[in-house]
Amino acid sequence: MKTLVATHPQGEYPIYIGSQLLAHADLLQQHVRSTQVMVITNETIAPLYLNKVLSALSNTPQCDVTILKDGEKNKNLDTFSIIIDTLAEKNHHRDTTLIALGGGVIGDMTGFAAACYHRGVHFIQIPTTLLSQVDASVGGKTGVNHPKGKNLIGAFHQPQAVVIDVDTLQTLPDRALRAGFAEIIKSALIQDENFFYWLKDNAQSILDLTPTPLVDAILRACTIKRDIVAEDEKEQGVRAHLNLGHTFGHAIEHNLGYGTWLHGEAVATGLLMAAHLSRSLGWLSPQAYADIDSLIAEAGLPRNLPPQIKCDKLLAAMKGDKKVLENKLRLILLQSIGQAVIRSDLSDEALIQAIEAFRSD
Amino acid sequence: MKTLVATHPQGEYPIYIGSQLLAHADLLQQHVRSTQVMVITNETIAPLYLNKVLSALSNTPQCDVTILKDGEKNKNLDTFSIIIDTLAEKNHHRDTTLIALGGGVIGDMTGFAAACYHRGVHFIQIPTTLLSQVDASVGGKTGVNHPKGKNLIGAFHQPQAVVIDVDTLQTLPDRALRAGFAEIIKSALIQDENFFYWLKDNAQSILDLTPTPLVDAILRACTIKRDIVAEDEKEQGVRAHLNLGHTFGHAIEHNLGYGTWLHGEAVATGLLMAAHLSRSLGWLSPQAYADIDSLIAEAGLPRNLPPQIKCDKLLAAMKGDKKVLENKLRLILLQSIGQAVIRSDLSDEALIQAIEAFRSD
Repeated sequence: MKTLVATHPQGEYPIYIGSQLLAHADLLQQHVRSTQVMVITNETIAPLYLNKVLSALSNTPQCDVTILKDGEKNKNLDTFSIIIDTLAEKNHHRDTTLIALGGGVIGDMTGFAAACYHRGVHFIQIPTTLLSQVDASVGGKTGVNHPKGKNLIGAFHQPQAVVIDVDTLQTLPDRALRAGFAEIIKSALIQDENFFYWLKDNAQSILDLTPTPLVDAILRACTIKRDIVAEDEKEQGVRAHLNLGHTFGHAIEHNLGYGTWLHGEAVATGLLMAAHLSRSLGWLSPQAYADIDSLIAEAGLPRNLPPQIKCDKLLAAMKGDKKVLENKLRLILLQSIGQAVIRSDLSDEALIQAIEAFRSD
Repeated sequence: MKTLVATHPQGEYPIYIGSQLLAHADLLQQHVRSTQVMVITNETIAPLYLNKVLSALSNTPQCDVTILKDGEKNKNLDTFSIIIDTLAEKNHHRDTTLIALGGGVIGDMTGFAAACYHRGVHFIQIPTTLLSQVDASVGGKTGVNHPKGKNLIGAFHQPQAVVIDVDTLQTLPDRALRAGFAEIIKSALIQDENFFYWLKDNAQSILDLTPTPLVDAILRACTIKRDIVAEDEKEQGVRAHLNLGHTFGHAIEHNLGYGTWLHGEAVATGLLMAAHLSRSLGWLSPQAYADIDSLIAEAGLPRNLPPQIKCDKLLAAMKGDKKVLENKLRLILLQSIGQAVIRSDLSDEALIQAIEAFRSD
């Protein structure tokens, strides 16, 4: 087991990464300081891992469970209300602990409920998808979607601990595993050239869930995110680098309808689009671009826009993205592999050119 | 105009207290750093003060308004959703500024919407009731009610500025003015004996809205709250003192149904009950108790429980209050006037005795 400590303005918390951690009762229990817990999970994950988690919590007098429907489309205020209603009905006090058992949707909603219930209660993350393990487990972002935008309603709220049991990836569909891998590629691209080329050498064994490189890849991705977030908790500056590929990615998801492509798939194409734009501007070398393209290909991630995407609608969605400050579109681009930059001065022509290069028709 | 600076872990903000502040455009405008604002108010306050605020904001390019129904019963997730929906529809970005124009309900809901929209945007408080001027304007507590409890869903979120124009109290109903005065009495009781006896000397001129003692009383009450909150932002310790009278008060409101008595009226009776219990325990002198009783009488606030209240139901509601930690009821009591203490060791018998002493039948 590897342990990473994430710090934030109010304190710190450990991120445990390894095999068989759910069976390790002490690990979870040392972070439950209350007589009440509520495990929040979904219909897919509950039959697989809920009993393991409940066994680990057997010393806690009141242990309740909320099982939600699976899927991003349920990440909304209505489902948030269900969590709050259940907490209130079961008379959970302000010293309760919530436990998020599932992917990013469960983590974001549980975290947001923990942020708001009694103006903030403790919560523990047990992310069960590769995406949530490397992305949502660090940084304290929580929230739900609104018809007008993803994560439009949310809060910054830090967990007490994050328990990443890589064995849970055994039951993750292959497509979701690859989508999570896209976020690992992203963290390498923005911060660490050596890690990027190590990923190129180890991509297949990571995707085969070989424990040592898998744990190392998650640890490195979490460490990169932790260091960026520690510098900028509230996303005023450098934290924006984490959005590399995401302005394109969110616009793709928005245009396709959320759920058609997985978030990580849209990010993968977004990473390539940002890299393409960076190459056009003369920053990224043709070789570096080719290396990024080949790693995304090797990971089996999409490298072109879906045919139904219209250029003007994609651009409009990018401009509607919340990373617009004072009505200027900010994009994260690459100076080189391992070095991200924020740009707000790109012309519509440059953006359209980048979009056109990825049309699959 | 008096200015008080409130500090919190992330920074500080000014609280301006005086006459004719709404006409003072620069005061508001210097705190709006965005091209978008949304004024959130209600149907009672809009006809009285909205135009003044909009005039003061005339330099802001996009100035939207949301007018909500008046009343505590609308302080819920549905109304919160209306605010969020309007912000999203009008395309407000993460650099927008919300302005709460109204009493505590408007302030709490606007603050909570500001806490959650894009995970936190700026907001300015313009409290128009005495209660919200002395209570909600300091401390960063925001939230909405849930059928199972008041302020069960909320966040800590600090404003950019608080503008207290005491002229708005001219249109406040007399009963609400007196209820607000109860919170001023409370702040004196927990922290400042001199202020308490000054209040006794000046009660009538404050309730007559004589500008100088009125501004001084608000300033002193806000200062006491500011100092307590600065010591304990997240209510881990000394901030609990601010709940003097509130565990009884909330239980009264809960038993009567919210809105039958005003919050400050329930707090006034709660203050007396806490004082009575403190006297029974031998802490508060009979003279001090009589002085508290006479100030509450002079302010025209209720000094007995309403006849329909049942002792056992009141006790049950107190135990269901969120200030219960690890299932122990914590009460704030008075060592003397100006000195509050937290007690968790009171027997049900002592509580029942205190409740029985206030039965009006």
